[in-house]
Amino acid sequence: MVNQIYKQVFSFFLSVLLLQSSTVSYVRKSFDLNKPCRHFVLYLHNIAYDDDNAANATAATIVNPLGLGDYSFGRVIICDNPVTMDQNYLSKPVARAQGFYFYNKKTNFNTWVAWTLVFNSTKHKGTFTIMDANPYGMEPTRDLAIVGGTGDFLMTRGIATLKTKLSQGSKYFCLEMNIKLYECY
Amino acid sequence: MVNQIYKQVFSFFLSVLLLQSSTVSYVRKSFDLNKPCRHFVLYLHNIAYDDDNAANATAATIVNPLGLGDYSFGRVIICDNPVTMDQNYLSKPVARAQGFYFYNKKTNFNTWVAWTLVFNSTKHKGTFTIMDANPYGMEPTRDLAIVGGTGDFLMTRGIATLKTKLSQGSKYFCLEMNIKLYECY
Amino acid sequence: MVNQIYKQVFSFFLSVLLLQSSTVSYVRKSFDLNKPCRHFVLYLHNIAYDDDNAANATAATIVNPLGLGDYSFGRVIICDNPVTMDQNYLSKPVARAQGFYFYNKKTNFNTWVAWTLVFNSTKHKGTFTIMDANPYGMEPTRDLAIVGGTGDFLMTRGIATLKTKLSQGSKYFCLEMNIKLYECY
Repeated sequence: MVNQIYKQVFSFFLSVLLLQSSTVSYVRKSFDLNKPCRHFVLYLHNIAYDDDNAANATAATIVNPLGLGDYSFGRVIICDNPVTMDQNYLSKPVARAQGFYFYNKKTNFNTWVAWTLVFNSTKHKGTFTIMDANPYGMEPTRDLAIVGGTGDFLMTRGIATLKTKLSQGSKYFCLEMNIKLYECY
Repeated sequence: MVNQIYKQVFSFFLSVLLLQSSTVSYVRKSFDLNKPCRHFVLYLHNIAYDDDNAANATAATIVNPLGLGDYSFGRVIICDNPVTMDQNYLSKPVARAQGFYFYNKKTNFNTWVAWTLVFNSTKHKGTFTIMDANPYGMEPTRDLAIVGGTGDFLMTRGIATLKTKLSQGSKYFCLEMNIKLYECY
Repeated sequence: MVNQIYKQVFSFFLSVLLLQSSTVSYVRKSFDLNKPCRHFVLYLHNIAYDDDNAANATAATIVNPLGLGDYSFGRVIICDNPVTMDQNYLSKPVARAQGFYFYNKKTNFNTWVAWTLVFNSTKHKGTFTIMDANPYGMEPTRDLAIVGGTGDFLMTRGIATLKTKLSQGSKYFCLEMNIKLYECY
């Protein structure tokens, strides 16, 4: 009977080890997308520089559109946008979204985005970077990849789901950013 | 004898746990590069905008070279390039390569690339981003890093091996992209 | 007594499996930041192009500042900077830092950086990419995320801690880069 236990335990063990060794050549995991290790919602505010609003501006066009199509193809914007916990752009920022984006489609409004969220408060210190296509002219909600981070967000990865909450021509827009991190350290 | 079994099982267990705990402070794995979890070959087509081909153009220079060396140092291109399953640029695109690249070497043709492959068909929905140096003037095949993704390519990572298949001066080029993903979810 | 052993072993096993299964929906690990899988210090040298130093220049402004604030907001630089093992910029480079950076703050010197370190020697072949905010005007040491790589640095991730070692106006700067990789393959 002792032998039997030994065999059972051993075979169980072996199967666990075999399962584990199958992850050596590559990593394949299934995720429950509803269970991120961190989840929070932030609001980003972009006030475009128009030569007269230097005090308020948080983003500025550095390269103008080419005239290729009617959707600003070629326009490049650099930003240091405040990020708040609610939709009010006068709320105290909890982070800054630093980076750039540009328009890259002839047939619709579509940007390519690389933004680093920089947290520097007593509560949170660290950064993470969102980088992906942002087809806001075609899709009301867009998933963008989060590819890495530092500090409280060391080596994090996940998804930022963006929704445009408000857009005032070329002057101002507010984005809801639903942040879901699936890799936390 | 029971005691002996207990000891054996326990020591075996302990060694497994110790092996596992060694991965707590960092992750070190050996990969079989021949066994990606996903593997496919795509072709990217770049038709440069020349002021007269707005209908066909898929990429455009937004900043001209500086004249530092003879290899276009400083030229920046934004693109929304079609990606097909074969080398024929008239084939139906399965994805778009959205992003930008620029020339950054005085002594040879060398670009730095950030392209997001955007899939939006009934078969595949999602994105992944290739970002790396692309020394195409020096090396016939170049490995570029894939650093993250969304949708069908959620949080994927791996390598895109690029080969230039055709290059027609500054008007057109076609790249083979051998995509090997080693992290799939 | 055998039964008791069986129970102990089984419950121990179960707890291990439960601990492991908790990583299925997401990955949460605690790191010992003092134990990277690779650790080395490099020095980056940036010699700015000034129209008269084409032979020596390793970086060049491609877009000039906008005049929004006094901290170069909007300036974009493309670089192919030599990287050495010591602080002497005449030492033999072990890598090149290829990529770009730009100034994005109205109130202080702050850059956003995307640099790929390209190794191409008999000792090391491969690349990895640093991408993050770099608030050098405010913080003497800055952690930037390493988000992926190729070759000897296949799919690596970690942190580059930057310190400015020397800065000669807008002509030259030298950065210490303390590279800590926590994911190695």
